[in-house]
Amino acid sequence: MDLVLLSHGAGGLEMSALIDKVFLSRYGNAAFKGDDSATLQLGAQHLAMTTDSYVVTPIFFPGGDIGRLAVAGTVNDLLTAGARPLALSASFIIEEGLPIATLERIAQSMRETAAECGAAIVTGDTKVVPRGSADQVFITTTGVGEVLRVGVSGAAAAPGDKIILTGSVGDHGATVMLAREGLLEGTSLKSDAAPLAAMVINLLEQGLEIHAMRDPTRGGIASSLNEIARQSQVLLEIEESAVKVKPGVAAACEALGLDVFKVANEGKMLIFVAPKDAEKALAIVRSSPYGEDGGIIGEVKAGPPGRVQVRTAIGTARILDPPSGELLPRIC
Amino acid sequence: MDLVLLSHGAGGLEMSALIDKVFLSRYGNAAFKGDDSATLQLGAQHLAMTTDSYVVTPIFFPGGDIGRLAVAGTVNDLLTAGARPLALSASFIIEEGLPIATLERIAQSMRETAAECGAAIVTGDTKVVPRGSADQVFITTTGVGEVLRVGVSGAAAAPGDKIILTGSVGDHGATVMLAREGLLEGTSLKSDAAPLAAMVINLLEQGLEIHAMRDPTRGGIASSLNEIARQSQVLLEIEESAVKVKPGVAAACEALGLDVFKVANEGKMLIFVAPKDAEKALAIVRSSPYGEDGGIIGEVKAGPPGRVQVRTAIGTARILDPPSGELLPRIC
Repeated sequence: MDLVLLSHGAGGLEMSALIDKVFLSRYGNAAFKGDDSATLQLGAQHLAMTTDSYVVTPIFFPGGDIGRLAVAGTVNDLLTAGARPLALSASFIIEEGLPIATLERIAQSMRETAAECGAAIVTGDTKVVPRGSADQVFITTTGVGEVLRVGVSGAAAAPGDKIILTGSVGDHGATVMLAREGLLEGTSLKSDAAPLAAMVINLLEQGLEIHAMRDPTRGGIASSLNEIARQSQVLLEIEESAVKVKPGVAAACEALGLDVFKVANEGKMLIFVAPKDAEKALAIVRSSPYGEDGGIIGEVKAGPPGRVQVRTAIGTARILDPPSGELLPRIC
Repeated sequence: MDLVLLSHGAGGLEMSALIDKVFLSRYGNAAFKGDDSATLQLGAQHLAMTTDSYVVTPIFFPGGDIGRLAVAGTVNDLLTAGARPLALSASFIIEEGLPIATLERIAQSMRETAAECGAAIVTGDTKVVPRGSADQVFITTTGVGEVLRVGVSGAAAAPGDKIILTGSVGDHGATVMLAREGLLEGTSLKSDAAPLAAMVINLLEQGLEIHAMRDPTRGGIASSLNEIARQSQVLLEIEESAVKVKPGVAAACEALGLDVFKVANEGKMLIFVAPKDAEKALAIVRSSPYGEDGGIIGEVKAGPPGRVQVRTAIGTARILDPPSGELLPRIC
């Protein structure tokens, strides 16, 4: 009998196979097309809708907590559809015995993160399960947004597009993994969890020709880049030296045996922009407090389609595979 | 230190106190006003949005399963805002080791329930947590709907309104409780889990003067009636003999020591309608396969406000308190 394994939740090939087999085969419809947000038309309005469950452990970590993550992650997913976040719902599954003060600290963090990006938390639910039936608290956040630029999709990257990455990679995943192992002390690691609404809405309102965006969470940039290469049927060429990794993050990944390209980020965006608008877009990204380290990390080529190629500093090239077999549960 | 207790999730007074203290005090805004759905205005459109997590155990039971519940519950909450369900998201938290076939059975049930009411499941998420960090599978469903009748709210019940209940009470809760205790054999109990979209949209499209609706889930009709009495600042008078209880459900509640008015329903609606439209509304309710046993169970009076009074068959009256101290975890 086939069982659900931890690797089915890790953002890589197994997850995508499970989703295809169980869900897409049944729910397949025009809106459900492989992006992080669905888009719907209602009268003249285009809406984006996205949902994510957050099961991170520990629930508090340097740079954030499950509440900040739950708002930022959902807001960032709306942004990838070219949408301005309007309303969020938050549903809590709480293990009996959680201190109410802990729940209040999380609720406060959600409020502050939502306020930071002008989104309102409009409705919610709470369920309490007996001790041992869940671990502390799980949060599911759903967001609805107003699409400002129709057609932004992982399927819309075009040859010639420049690929902007808004900062360094691996910060969130490395921080959570070290925190869980009790190895954070003495390091300066912190999660990058952040809502990127101001930055991305600025890009959209300037009318720049943005084709695709994705926030590289579970599975890291390896997963997001491979998804877009496959959805758009293009080749992505990445300059390895252009992808920033903080020294502490690099050291942590080395110690944990992780490929930093496959480690989760929670406050970064990959932006595929027409070459004519690339410099303008990069300037806007860098003017955001969450985008100071942004840079162009590569570009889109016609083919071979569905592939991500990394050029190393010494001039060789390697294929960047999507993650597979990873066991990093409860990273977000 | 104050801890979250099972009673905080039971749909009664403790839950409402927790939500006030932790969430409403922070997120309080115009949309977040005590109804099961929030409403938002976007251009000329009025949208409803609602979310619920489903943690029921067992995950399969006579009359339904966690998937049917997850769609029906969220659809019914949208209906209470006078909205037609448009799009649903579904987020799964899965315990490592769940058979994939089980997940497929649930996904299939969700698909069928959604198709029954014309709503599309447009986006989702899957998280996998290690064994022991969750119990089998939890689902959070969020719905977005188009408001067909603006202003339907638990705060809008008016003196004179007739109160329609669309069928018998306690079926879902009694079935799940007996299933959990292994006591179902030999009974004909089954959950009433059902999406009431066709029935309610029919009422709305006929232009009937519906003021308030609520689906009496956790905490049963005792909870929903008290909420509406408080929100609308009215007295509700209920005829005990008009509230139908199936003999098997009555026997189960007696055996389990439960007040059937406080037991969850998952396919019923309380409908507050202007007296002039009450008979027309009842005829529509009864023409639905989910409303054959519908009836008028009482009416709205001016005061004393915030109170629910039950008239018994022998002519005496008692106050129906909201549930409190109940310990019925994982009923939905």
